[in-house]
Amino acid sequence: MSERLPLEKLHCVIPAGGIGSRLWPLSRAAAPKFLHDLTGSGQTLLKETWNRLLPLADPSRITIVTGKPHADAVQRQLPQLLAENLILEETPRDSTAAIALAAAILVNRDADVIIGSFAADHVISDQKAFEAVVREAVEVAATGKIVTIGIKPLEPSIGFGYIQAGAALDGAQTALAVESFVEKPNLETAKAYLEAGNYLWNAGMFIAPAQLILGVLAETEPQLHADVLKIAAAWHTDSQEEVVAEVWPKLKKVAIDYSVAEPAAEKGLVAVVPATFEWHDVGDFAAIAALQSKGREGHLAVLGDAQVLSDQSSGILVGESSRLIALIGMQDVIVVDTPDALLITTKEHAQRVKKIVETLQSSGHRDVL
Amino acid sequence: MSERLPLEKLHCVIPAGGIGSRLWPLSRAAAPKFLHDLTGSGQTLLKETWNRLLPLADPSRITIVTGKPHADAVQRQLPQLLAENLILEETPRDSTAAIALAAAILVNRDADVIIGSFAADHVISDQKAFEAVVREAVEVAATGKIVTIGIKPLEPSIGFGYIQAGAALDGAQTALAVESFVEKPNLETAKAYLEAGNYLWNAGMFIAPAQLILGVLAETEPQLHADVLKIAAAWHTDSQEEVVAEVWPKLKKVAIDYSVAEPAAEKGLVAVVPATFEWHDVGDFAAIAALQSKGREGHLAVLGDAQVLSDQSSGILVGESSRLIALIGMQDVIVVDTPDALLITTKEHAQRVKKIVETLQSSGHRDVL
Repeated sequence: MSERLPLEKLHCVIPAGGIGSRLWPLSRAAAPKFLHDLTGSGQTLLKETWNRLLPLADPSRITIVTGKPHADAVQRQLPQLLAENLILEETPRDSTAAIALAAAILVNRDADVIIGSFAADHVISDQKAFEAVVREAVEVAATGKIVTIGIKPLEPSIGFGYIQAGAALDGAQTALAVESFVEKPNLETAKAYLEAGNYLWNAGMFIAPAQLILGVLAETEPQLHADVLKIAAAWHTDSQEEVVAEVWPKLKKVAIDYSVAEPAAEKGLVAVVPATFEWHDVGDFAAIAALQSKGREGHLAVLGDAQVLSDQSSGILVGESSRLIALIGMQDVIVVDTPDALLITTKEHAQRVKKIVETLQSSGHRDVL
Repeated sequence: MSERLPLEKLHCVIPAGGIGSRLWPLSRAAAPKFLHDLTGSGQTLLKETWNRLLPLADPSRITIVTGKPHADAVQRQLPQLLAENLILEETPRDSTAAIALAAAILVNRDADVIIGSFAADHVISDQKAFEAVVREAVEVAATGKIVTIGIKPLEPSIGFGYIQAGAALDGAQTALAVESFVEKPNLETAKAYLEAGNYLWNAGMFIAPAQLILGVLAETEPQLHADVLKIAAAWHTDSQEEVVAEVWPKLKKVAIDYSVAEPAAEKGLVAVVPATFEWHDVGDFAAIAALQSKGREGHLAVLGDAQVLSDQSSGILVGESSRLIALIGMQDVIVVDTPDALLITTKEHAQRVKKIVETLQSSGHRDVL
């Protein structure tokens, strides 16, 4: 039997976890960000992510990791999803547990599997460019690297972590070595990164042999590694329920940046392929407004069924009901109208929405979260 | 039988007609301004007006003139209202028809009646001062004058007509002769009025012998006068329905300012008692906000049952449902949340609400008007 091509080893993993509290009251525990159509495409972000990956991996090689409460919604969205490719988390245990469990389950099925992790709630417009970047990343991953996809900064954003890129990899088309990962900077540092030119936004997408990820984790978090392997060994067996009940609550909560990406970068095991496509994480309503208005000044973007009467107004309006909404003289406004909660703010204050959610959490308003 | 005191001849008339389209979507055809609690007092403006008049006239001497669609709501608000004191208009025919019909009906019951007309949708806070002003106005009216109550301008408003006051009346406490009525001025003229000191806001309140009003009308609008008398003669008789059906549609639409007040002023028949009380017409949401915040900067006034979470926001929020409304960074905002329509604007744009209503009228959205 001939050796498979790298792309034939690819298995895509879509962690669909975050609620997206900056998008409250649209996005909430029962209906998180990835289950919404935030681009006006008529499809949820999850479905768009799935469709984006289909040219790279057929449905038998796409796995979703999500919370138990979202199982039904995810399966309704993705009728082609295989039951064995739906990993349901008992409770959220952060990104290392989610990715490592998927890696461990998949490696038991296919020892040489290369996993590609793609968030369920990002927006990418140029499909062909996306595919080309992933293809190169898979080729580089097959040489024994963890390969991230880096986004060229458009502005000195303080909302993303950055990837410090180094020299070009030998023989690669565009891939560069990664010197280090740096956390969300302050504005001054972000400006310096933008000027330096060799810093890319960390969009959280990466492609790597599952064995390599688990190997790094075994060194940095041996207990978590052992726990994940124990669950993976019992997965889809008669003892799954028992083992999960025993081990899951103990799983250490740690971001994969700390447990795998940064330690691997220090060892020179990480590469980055700079993205040639437009990428948006639609992290808050201002980002959605920007995406919808495509830079048009004074534009009011409308998502949903609301009947809108706009007089000298701009920004974004999300209306889940069909009722009439009249705006007069509201520039750069954000209005999100849901059956039980209404948010009114401005683009400038879009990031503060998270604070409102925290206030609601601590003041006993969990019914609207 | 001794001659009655002037106050014993007083019969108060409350024209409850205007929809208040600047207060949309709260105030609308089916639920006009006077049927709302706009002060947070727990009572509708109509009920507050009724209560304000009770110390001056018992319920047998208070009449409401309103449209047929509001009959039930008015009677629910005012259980003490006598059936004979409810005058229902077939269709709105402007203020002359409303007042003159009341005057004609009342004069048939009591030839010497002095009518006092008080709008159903104004806010007056100092009850004792109000009573004193009305008592003086009734005394002056009994000498054969139409007596208006003038409001001392607080600012160069372009939203009101003005009363040009002249010399003090002989023997009066505070009443002055009225030189003329002037229409809503431009800002420059309004500033000149404020500086001149002898111009008062015309709040539309007046007290006069019913015979005097009808006498002026007979000269200025003889056909309208004859039509009104014909209806009044048939009122509460077996032929009421027939006469109303015949005459009502022909009633000329004209404001009482033009048909009675201005012509009477030219003849020296009008006096004004300057108000010593605070008066608000709560004509738009900015006025309600000002009333509610009592001048406190940065205050967010809340009317209704909404649960409000305010972060760096001020202005006014009217919430008819109990749902959660979160405001972030909205200064001087106006939010009016009703089951089928939501308005979001700013204090600065409060007067433009009327324009939205006009747009809705012309675009087939009568269901929300």
